[in-house]
Amino acid sequence: MKQRQERLTIAASREKFTDITDRVRKFVASAGITTGLLTLFIQHTSASLLIQENADPDVLKDLADAFARLAPRNANYRHTTEGPDDMPSHIRAALTQTSLSIPVADGNPQLGTWQAIYLFEHRDAPHQRQVLMHIIGE
Amino acid sequence: MKQRQERLTIAASREKFTDITDRVRKFVASAGITTGLLTLFIQHTSASLLIQENADPDVLKDLADAFARLAPRNANYRHTTEGPDDMPSHIRAALTQTSLSIPVADGNPQLGTWQAIYLFEHRDAPHQRQVLMHIIGE
Amino acid sequence: MKQRQERLTIAASREKFTDITDRVRKFVASAGITTGLLTLFIQHTSASLLIQENADPDVLKDLADAFARLAPRNANYRHTTEGPDDMPSHIRAALTQTSLSIPVADGNPQLGTWQAIYLFEHRDAPHQRQVLMHIIGE
Repeated sequence: MKQRQERLTIAASREKFTDITDRVRKFVASAGITTGLLTLFIQHTSASLLIQENADPDVLKDLADAFARLAPRNANYRHTTEGPDDMPSHIRAALTQTSLSIPVADGNPQLGTWQAIYLFEHRDAPHQRQVLMHIIGE
Repeated sequence: MKQRQERLTIAASREKFTDITDRVRKFVASAGITTGLLTLFIQHTSASLLIQENADPDVLKDLADAFARLAPRNANYRHTTEGPDDMPSHIRAALTQTSLSIPVADGNPQLGTWQAIYLFEHRDAPHQRQVLMHIIGE
Repeated sequence: MKQRQERLTIAASREKFTDITDRVRKFVASAGITTGLLTLFIQHTSASLLIQENADPDVLKDLADAFARLAPRNANYRHTTEGPDDMPSHIRAALTQTSLSIPVADGNPQLGTWQAIYLFEHRDAPHQRQVLMHIIGE
């Protein structure tokens, strides 16, 4: 049994969703672990992780709209010092994932056919984001 | 330290919630691991995993209502090609869990007294769903 | 490779959010594991786990308001036998986390600068809550 850990730095972008599946697959392939458990962890509270459909890009646009509705920009927030987009970002992060766990088999994270792993950015301005990847297995 | 992995196929059903706790417990018992970590992962983006109350069935009905309200059927979605129930399904999946991690002790997943593990189906039509189970420990 | 497991009992409080980061760090430090994977699991369905900002306390107040809006107290719930605050509590728990996974390096859970781990209590009355901590690594 062995383990490996690596940091993924995701470059600033104005896109709400950044598909990180290929970079995650590359890490798993490089770890030399055939069977095991992969964990992803994002070190932020205004961006999050999401596994969602990789086929129709309209799904991502509708998801962004849905979270804009669930955590609206204007709701008389107390916390406004970091800008009007910060508090809705924290709420959207709370509603999605800070960590994800994915079984690994045949040297691959066992995603379903239609699943991709996304960094879900909640702030308006482009941010550089840190995701930790950990794998344990043999 | 050892690990084991198994696929759970959950038969099509019209029920929103399918209790999979017993099947998960059976897998843990068969793995011959007393102390460790259990991970569940669902390979879909319009169904999800949820740990919720196992006592009053009304809780599940109220939960289904709540998610129908949070991700309504009609919200001018762009993504409509797979039917009017598909986009709300993706939103409900995004709001709940794709993966769950549960510590194992005495050969049992350490659920609380009132906790059951559910597959939460978001589509209207019955689907066959795949859940991967991974356990590591000794 | 070794593992360790411990129960964290969180004393009753009227606070919605209890910062458990220090107690989690102490467990990791005591486990004698430098590199590995930490898992937290809450054994309840009306309280949950949340990683959120540790800086401005207004963020927590706004988060509490947001979840009160997302899962309102009065929504013609069927499940009312345990009081009017119970069903919204289950919904808030479903929208947040029952388990969290955090990579460990240098003997520390690798939280970001602004991240703290909170127990998020959803009931009105003070409850004593159980969180299981599991670490595996070397």
